[in-house]
Amino acid sequence: MLTGMAQNDALPGFCTWLDDSNDVTTEMMRLAGKAGMISLAGGLPAPELYPMKAIESATKRALVRWGSRALEYGPITGFPALREAIATRMSEEIGQRIGTDNVLLTAGSMQALDGIGKILIEPGETIIAQHPTYMGALDAWRPRTPHYQQFTWDFEDKGFLAAADRAKFIYTVPNYSNPTGVLVGQQDRRALLALVREKRIWLVEDDPYSCMQLDGNSGPSILALDAADRNEDIYSGPVIYLGTLSKSLAPGFRVGWVVGNPEVIRALTLAKQCTDMTGSMFSQAVALELIEQKVESQMIDGLLSTYRERRNALCAALSTHLGDWFEWEIPSGGMFVWLKAKRADLDTTRLYRVAIEHNVMFCPGSAFDHAGKMHTTMRLNFTRSAPDVLEEGVRRLARAVEDSLSKLASGSSRLAVQ
Amino acid sequence: MLTGMAQNDALPGFCTWLDDSNDVTTEMMRLAGKAGMISLAGGLPAPELYPMKAIESATKRALVRWGSRALEYGPITGFPALREAIATRMSEEIGQRIGTDNVLLTAGSMQALDGIGKILIEPGETIIAQHPTYMGALDAWRPRTPHYQQFTWDFEDKGFLAAADRAKFIYTVPNYSNPTGVLVGQQDRRALLALVREKRIWLVEDDPYSCMQLDGNSGPSILALDAADRNEDIYSGPVIYLGTLSKSLAPGFRVGWVVGNPEVIRALTLAKQCTDMTGSMFSQAVALELIEQKVESQMIDGLLSTYRERRNALCAALSTHLGDWFEWEIPSGGMFVWLKAKRADLDTTRLYRVAIEHNVMFCPGSAFDHAGKMHTTMRLNFTRSAPDVLEEGVRRLARAVEDSLSKLASGSSRLAVQ
Repeated sequence: MLTGMAQNDALPGFCTWLDDSNDVTTEMMRLAGKAGMISLAGGLPAPELYPMKAIESATKRALVRWGSRALEYGPITGFPALREAIATRMSEEIGQRIGTDNVLLTAGSMQALDGIGKILIEPGETIIAQHPTYMGALDAWRPRTPHYQQFTWDFEDKGFLAAADRAKFIYTVPNYSNPTGVLVGQQDRRALLALVREKRIWLVEDDPYSCMQLDGNSGPSILALDAADRNEDIYSGPVIYLGTLSKSLAPGFRVGWVVGNPEVIRALTLAKQCTDMTGSMFSQAVALELIEQKVESQMIDGLLSTYRERRNALCAALSTHLGDWFEWEIPSGGMFVWLKAKRADLDTTRLYRVAIEHNVMFCPGSAFDHAGKMHTTMRLNFTRSAPDVLEEGVRRLARAVEDSLSKLASGSSRLAVQ
Repeated sequence: MLTGMAQNDALPGFCTWLDDSNDVTTEMMRLAGKAGMISLAGGLPAPELYPMKAIESATKRALVRWGSRALEYGPITGFPALREAIATRMSEEIGQRIGTDNVLLTAGSMQALDGIGKILIEPGETIIAQHPTYMGALDAWRPRTPHYQQFTWDFEDKGFLAAADRAKFIYTVPNYSNPTGVLVGQQDRRALLALVREKRIWLVEDDPYSCMQLDGNSGPSILALDAADRNEDIYSGPVIYLGTLSKSLAPGFRVGWVVGNPEVIRALTLAKQCTDMTGSMFSQAVALELIEQKVESQMIDGLLSTYRERRNALCAALSTHLGDWFEWEIPSGGMFVWLKAKRADLDTTRLYRVAIEHNVMFCPGSAFDHAGKMHTTMRLNFTRSAPDVLEEGVRRLARAVEDSLSKLASGSSRLAVQ
């Protein structure tokens, strides 16, 4: 799934990492807005749940309260009062003190991933990443042209253990992982933490879905486990934790944060200085009002019951329409169901194009593989659309599968005749 | 001016480019907020001119008009209606059609510079940059570890001409350059364009100050000159033009844009996908309302007369208090006065620390030099502060110079005694 970037003959070409890139995310964002399209592709919250009224009044309050300070360039580390509020919130969440120096505000978690690439990956170095890997992380690190070592929570894996001796960090999404929806258990979290301590490397814990616990409780984050053992005033451990308001409030603010060792925060701050100078104080000042008014906790019950209903609707439709071709597990949280084809010739990268003709989109598994493989898997989102839309999307997907397989069959038979 | 980043002994260190970095911008942003500090350092507009009321009502209108679409992840290229509005605005500005495909919205021009580094600089490649160079550009490209060839508008310079055969682009700020305030004349612009066409390389024209023409008119941008010759429906030339709302409306929105060849826009869109996924639709939707309501043109006369008065006040104070030690030219636009020391031992990097003790900040010249030299120059901003504050700032600066020179003299004499 290359970009097929046709480079201008007359002018200098672009960097080679772009050839390894894909525009799945760009295309997802673009086609998702097309009339009649049902997108099961993105990781988008339900827009009808955005707290519109609260945002309007939060903006008004923020402008009165902060005046021009809400419209300035601000500190690179973020709007100071929001930075403090996030430190307080994270302290409460993990039951250990997180200082302001432990926090950097970012433009969503995506910018944190970009910064981590900039400060920790010299061109060509090895990254250990939970596999399959969130495509945004693969995207963020592409300009650093890294090598990848897969990590599948197998602590006996020799390749993984050897790589841990030379890699600088391990990347993981323990809560309802993107793309698989898997919740990593507490025992595995502790094992990973022990390994990271033993090998003296960093651990990047990407945690956008902690607010989306549909069944049961995810238990403490790896950051919480480490901080509890340390019991410090200023956290100084190896975990680099990424949080965001994109899933709980609204993505359009682009407010995320990193919690980490102050040295990491300083290095990431320099990386952010090199990236966008400073975040949007306007967005951050409005987000602060929403946090102080506890808008998220007022929303959470409605959010979870909506998402639970949608997950159930999607999984029921899958059983009805796609059970012959795919298998999946019902996720206990997050936004995604991960499908694996039962047939080796059910190529989801090919299916992706056919599905678009059927006005339905999903995210092909290859987008989550650093080598662009995993061609028999796909990710479906259940948070974005109402139950009847999800059902219609799955019906279209089933027709696209039939179409794709029959094209394959006729292609094969033509080939056989020649 | 290294970061002096003390790396954690136990955990892997950070990338080497951080050692070549400086935290001038971080420190500027941080100390500028300190009580009693007079900052002549930043490139900050006058906050009392921000259109607070217009922004409040623009937010209200944007939320009613767009609903949840103003709070979503949006297309990576930016909020579609704002992208179109910028294409229209740029078409009017340069008198040639700029298509939507020619435009990418960015988080300020800074993010455009980061993207240009990502798509055009392989690690270690050569950049040709107008010298002295905007520190944000040096920052943005640091993670790509480039080499630099200086460009001083000398078209006979052999080193420059040789580098133009291998570099991918030339970077310039023709309008009231940062840091020097110099307005590049039309003849030099045409000469540069001719060279870029001949060598078949890209030209990055960074133009944040076009709205700040204090005396006279800057004339057409290089983009306008090239587009006029081409007379195309979709611009396909070598100029990559960067614009922003940070100086004309308010920086806190982080709304900037790139105009360029659609291939460049596609590559930069992929780079943005790798950086922050998508900009803040919230900010962009509000900015659109402000543009449609022509808030900038209502503001511009007041803005220019304020800035003219401030420039004059700063330059008068400089003549009174610093004329013995420095020389400068009065800029015809922009935000800065560039000072050159008359004495070789007047080291502005040392002066910077002394000045902070005197509660005044400036930007040392070394920040604008890829090699960290230019130790006898400094940049002063005149847009941020009222005339009496500027005057007091210059008085403090004069005391800091005396202090710095007397410390130097006593240091030298101690040295002579030993």
